[in-house]
Amino acid sequence: MRPVLTQLPRGARIYLPEEAARKRHVEGGLLDVFRRWGYREVVTPTFEYADVLALGTDAGVQENMFTLVDRETGRMLALRADITPQVARIVATRLRDEPKPLRLAYLTNVFRYDEPRVSHYREFYQAGVELVGLEKPEAEVEVIAMAIEGLRALGLGGFQIDLGHSGFLRGLLDQVKTDEARQLELRQALARKDVAALERVVADVAPPAHVAEALRTLPALVGGAPVLDRAAGCARNERSARALANLAEVYRLLTIYGLADSVLLDLGEVRGFDYYSGTYFEAYVAGFGAAVAGGGRYDQLLARFGYDCPAVGFAFDVGRVLAVMEAQGVAVAQPGPDFFIIDFTAEKTAALSLARRLRDGGAAVARDIISRGLEESLAYARAQHARHVLVVGGPGTPGDRLRALDLDTGGERTLRIAEVLAEPARHFGSAKGTDDG
Amino acid sequence: MRPVLTQLPRGARIYLPEEAARKRHVEGGLLDVFRRWGYREVVTPTFEYADVLALGTDAGVQENMFTLVDRETGRMLALRADITPQVARIVATRLRDEPKPLRLAYLTNVFRYDEPRVSHYREFYQAGVELVGLEKPEAEVEVIAMAIEGLRALGLGGFQIDLGHSGFLRGLLDQVKTDEARQLELRQALARKDVAALERVVADVAPPAHVAEALRTLPALVGGAPVLDRAAGCARNERSARALANLAEVYRLLTIYGLADSVLLDLGEVRGFDYYSGTYFEAYVAGFGAAVAGGGRYDQLLARFGYDCPAVGFAFDVGRVLAVMEAQGVAVAQPGPDFFIIDFTAEKTAALSLARRLRDGGAAVARDIISRGLEESLAYARAQHARHVLVVGGPGTPGDRLRALDLDTGGERTLRIAEVLAEPARHFGSAKGTDDG
Repeated sequence: MRPVLTQLPRGARIYLPEEAARKRHVEGGLLDVFRRWGYREVVTPTFEYADVLALGTDAGVQENMFTLVDRETGRMLALRADITPQVARIVATRLRDEPKPLRLAYLTNVFRYDEPRVSHYREFYQAGVELVGLEKPEAEVEVIAMAIEGLRALGLGGFQIDLGHSGFLRGLLDQVKTDEARQLELRQALARKDVAALERVVADVAPPAHVAEALRTLPALVGGAPVLDRAAGCARNERSARALANLAEVYRLLTIYGLADSVLLDLGEVRGFDYYSGTYFEAYVAGFGAAVAGGGRYDQLLARFGYDCPAVGFAFDVGRVLAVMEAQGVAVAQPGPDFFIIDFTAEKTAALSLARRLRDGGAAVARDIISRGLEESLAYARAQHARHVLVVGGPGTPGDRLRALDLDTGGERTLRIAEVLAEPARHFGSAKGTDDG
Repeated sequence: MRPVLTQLPRGARIYLPEEAARKRHVEGGLLDVFRRWGYREVVTPTFEYADVLALGTDAGVQENMFTLVDRETGRMLALRADITPQVARIVATRLRDEPKPLRLAYLTNVFRYDEPRVSHYREFYQAGVELVGLEKPEAEVEVIAMAIEGLRALGLGGFQIDLGHSGFLRGLLDQVKTDEARQLELRQALARKDVAALERVVADVAPPAHVAEALRTLPALVGGAPVLDRAAGCARNERSARALANLAEVYRLLTIYGLADSVLLDLGEVRGFDYYSGTYFEAYVAGFGAAVAGGGRYDQLLARFGYDCPAVGFAFDVGRVLAVMEAQGVAVAQPGPDFFIIDFTAEKTAALSLARRLRDGGAAVARDIISRGLEESLAYARAQHARHVLVVGGPGTPGDRLRALDLDTGGERTLRIAEVLAEPARHFGSAKGTDDG
């Protein structure tokens, strides 16, 4: 049967030029933030041995990896479903002798058999960083500050960082003598902030009274600095107390950074529980249900690759950022060519010299190399969002002149070609390619 | 068995920070060239249905595709082994009503079970363009000019474009009455420029005398403009003659562009024979055996996706470009942070303000957030190739001052923090982040 050619696999995504330009704008903006914080990019392979990748990947994500058989070795390969384990492995094997901390960035696609949703695909793009070798709370604060700077750089408003700590709940769960199934029920009730279900499970497992009280309080431990005081009463075990002290120090530093107003403490947040060893955060934007960025501390991950070293990291979900920008009406300039040259001469020399001169100055210059009428060429130039049209040759234009049309203003001038070549800036002041643009 | 964690699958490649920076430099430089010629990026999915991809892919490449079973539909998926068929499909299905020509660019990885070689991996990176909807020779000339401009933009010297035309040999083969196996032998002898083997096969298939003579002459039809005259004597069939006329027009236009000196006509070149319908070219750099870029005309490809439309395109092999740059000693700046701030204060406010002020001006600013001694921090700053080190607080420095060390010159100054904040440019003239950099 002839394949249906228009058919893409579920969750595969094409970016047409306008969308691709927006995507590059977002990725470039985020990479620039990372660079300004001293982070350097690494590039990881798209596929690796599945068992190696699995070693550093969440169980839930592992189940959703794209796998294939290496036809040479018969070993199972997988497409990366997460970049952090790859970076952890690279640090453990190739960069362990480098002076710490390491500041690494990445910008790449990942693959998961997730259920496709609006602005989420089975191949999706992440821009993120890893800060390796620093166990102090300043590390978390640095990456949270970068997440906020990234959101600002993209022109997004109304964002908020939800900040939790996996150690706080872990300390409480340590005191609940029950099976894993019940612990999972507890966490699911917390995740949904389903107070009734939470009451039921707590009554069922009957932990010590102060633990029961703490578990019931968790969903309400959301807010600013006062949350830390309220949580202190719930942290009557060493692990929870240590977690709280750590979170308090992170919050104190965020206050010095002037960022605390953008941060919401949420001790009942359990989404990152399995993956993170300490603080974790997610960035939300008003009116958009899914997190656009997330990260935290995972001090145990590198040890799985044979190198015991603390680390924090976070990543933006580029597709969601694009969706939010669209929802917030954040415009990304989509300029067409700065110049569009229509050439009616046979020898083409003047048009070629013009194109070269303008491109050397950095302008985007398209040439019409279809022999069509002027009106048709102009329509094409307009469709391309060209700014200036230069007409060389053709009826009524002497050989040493060109007609310059400004498609923005509708203005038209006749100029000497030699003068334009000598000094483009004099004639197209603010346009790129004219040495001052 | 515990997996060997250091083990990557054959042909997988990691780019550590210095290599990744070089890669991004190359890709950014090429995308910039494409943009200046009016090309706009598209992003294609990494995986698609294998039968759809195969439709536009060379038989040889098809055999080397990475395939996997879609776990939802059971249909075979493949990782893209070539971007052109994807772009062709996108044009045929999503952009067919757009005004032509379309100028599209891409920058992405492709996957093939090729034998790994120096600077060639099973996942490799291509930067290329497609010019769709233009059957005139100006289209080929435009992309050849872009290839040359790309090589120049990257600072590469000693390059050459080998230019051939599949129609010329096709016309000759039309006149050889023999089976496919013999035709393949003929083409293989030509590919190797193996004159003895060529003689033998030609004698064997015994074509008309003038065709035999033409086939024997092919390996010598290499050079500049005179090749066109010499080839004319061999083109005694309509198809070869038409091919030659087309090639001559392309060469004439390249001469007008001032590019003919970089172009070597090669009518015995058969490497692109299966794929291309007309002219095709490869870019070589002195001292490097493999082509760093290649492309040509494939007027029949889009029709396979249901849209009959002429097209030309070409792509750079980014990995090979990187290898050539290294061989030619082309340096890529690998700057560390512009500023490295070492902060001995408890309140951190001054250091944070400095970092923000400098970053807002575009500088890369790393901060040392490990409590170590000054000497150790300085050693770390040097290892990061930082340019300026700013020391805030610490023994002997009053609270309102900082010590500024220039790691390039070894110079050291004590500055008022307030003055640096007010006017960074006055103190760090040419550094980024100081508003004039």
